[in-house]
Amino acid sequence: MSLLVVGTVAFDEIETPWGKSGKILGGAATYIGLAASLLTDEVRLVSVVGGDFPEEYTRLLSDRKIDTSGIRVEAGCKTFFWSGRYHTNMNVRDTLCTELNVLAGFDPVLPQAFKKSRFLMLGNLTPCLQKRVVEQMEPRPELICMDTMNFWMDTAMDDLLEVISMVDILAVNEEEARQLSGEYSLVKATRKILAMGPSTLIIKRGEYGALLFHEGQMFAAPAMPLELVHDPTGAGDAFAGGFMGYLAREGNTSFDSMKNGLIYGSALASFAVEKFGTERLLNLSQDDIRERLLEFVKLVSFRV
Amino acid sequence: MSLLVVGTVAFDEIETPWGKSGKILGGAATYIGLAASLLTDEVRLVSVVGGDFPEEYTRLLSDRKIDTSGIRVEAGCKTFFWSGRYHTNMNVRDTLCTELNVLAGFDPVLPQAFKKSRFLMLGNLTPCLQKRVVEQMEPRPELICMDTMNFWMDTAMDDLLEVISMVDILAVNEEEARQLSGEYSLVKATRKILAMGPSTLIIKRGEYGALLFHEGQMFAAPAMPLELVHDPTGAGDAFAGGFMGYLAREGNTSFDSMKNGLIYGSALASFAVEKFGTERLLNLSQDDIRERLLEFVKLVSFRV
Repeated sequence: MSLLVVGTVAFDEIETPWGKSGKILGGAATYIGLAASLLTDEVRLVSVVGGDFPEEYTRLLSDRKIDTSGIRVEAGCKTFFWSGRYHTNMNVRDTLCTELNVLAGFDPVLPQAFKKSRFLMLGNLTPCLQKRVVEQMEPRPELICMDTMNFWMDTAMDDLLEVISMVDILAVNEEEARQLSGEYSLVKATRKILAMGPSTLIIKRGEYGALLFHEGQMFAAPAMPLELVHDPTGAGDAFAGGFMGYLAREGNTSFDSMKNGLIYGSALASFAVEKFGTERLLNLSQDDIRERLLEFVKLVSFRV
Repeated sequence: MSLLVVGTVAFDEIETPWGKSGKILGGAATYIGLAASLLTDEVRLVSVVGGDFPEEYTRLLSDRKIDTSGIRVEAGCKTFFWSGRYHTNMNVRDTLCTELNVLAGFDPVLPQAFKKSRFLMLGNLTPCLQKRVVEQMEPRPELICMDTMNFWMDTAMDDLLEVISMVDILAVNEEEARQLSGEYSLVKATRKILAMGPSTLIIKRGEYGALLFHEGQMFAAPAMPLELVHDPTGAGDAFAGGFMGYLAREGNTSFDSMKNGLIYGSALASFAVEKFGTERLLNLSQDDIRERLLEFVKLVSFRV
């Protein structure tokens, strides 16, 4: 089924203990879209880029059957740019530079054909933009999932709470869940967050996997222990893309389906971090994915 | 099968955001022994206490069929005492006071009948004491598991490496695995640590569960997300006790059996933290354990 992805398409420049990436393709919607496109066909992307955005990058996306007609090009502007540096402990990163550029004036207008998309993934963006997207959908999608970050909790909490009340699934990390709820225990935090509107909460825990909470049920997905994490940029977005891509492919939003979606998301995230930027996602085969899924099954299987 | 546990039996005094425990029963061997005794019958304990150690506490252990004849009482000395304070983030704790007391002169001499124990669990202790225990075993146990801590890596690395080379399973936390190996990646750290002697490595990750590495195979056990962690003291020891107690009960040291052991260990650890000190472990029914195990099965089950 159709999956609409809204979020940033950007240039990233990344430094890790293993090297420097130079200026490369980045952005939440890029990672979400690429990961989802490995699992399902009808992926549509809404974003904005500047006149400096190479056609070659757009082609990388459209070659993977991602509908890029919703990526507006503002010829007189520059593309959103982020640069950051990671340390040996990849959970810590310094932002070296953020240039909003074209993103500052972004007003997502959905192409008519996109408004009927059955699934909607809202990448991390200003809450009021996320809201404007939801309001344009007709009819309401079967499933809306949103990502966000602590920055919006500090600067736009009212808007954020409004969007949260409109979606089915909220995906945040542990610290964000704690900040949003004011509760340290994730079980208590979940109860408060689900009272804000969503029926489902995903708590992303990086190298420790992810938790899924839905109607009194709980599921823990592991992360794959890796030899080397080359670049964690986009891992959370690849995770969300794998999750929503799987659900869109199955057309099934049951708890069982969401559990599988979490495993697919974890698998795609585990690939994403193996190389700089989108490189690994762009060079993945279906066999690679199948093999990694089997590794996940083995990683957690037991019989008491 | 028989399980010998060697480690501290102590007084603890604990402060958490939820209250103060007063002076209560503590010590690694106490938690390990209690957790193991919930799964298997032949648990034997070797430790030392002072003349101030109440008979009532020894009876708490022997009532659970733990053989306490290896707990030496040094009448003229005081029992090992530890006190600490936890914060809302229970991963951080301040040690307020450590009084080695009777532990300073501890020389573990095994009762003749204990030397033939089939399984041996070495709680965290000075490495040279751990070594002295292993040397007294006759014949060598089928399985030796040891716990340790970063303090011994800083102060007695040579001794530590010698004991590590004598055991089958090493159980450490993430930071300790990194310090011991000099590798940040846990996969690389594991490779180096297994080259030091053990055939199996367990990496304890607290609220994130535990990893098991054995002969090129990997298993990730989750931790149970809890409403409230009342007191994390002894969680790692309850985990080790559940793990070894299960293996001793089954008399099976295969990878499959160890995976189950990790789940039993995680279940007992999840109980241990629900109340101050040993309170919850002392009031657990077999039904409680069975129910928690089913929750663990549900927590990680999926079918891709």
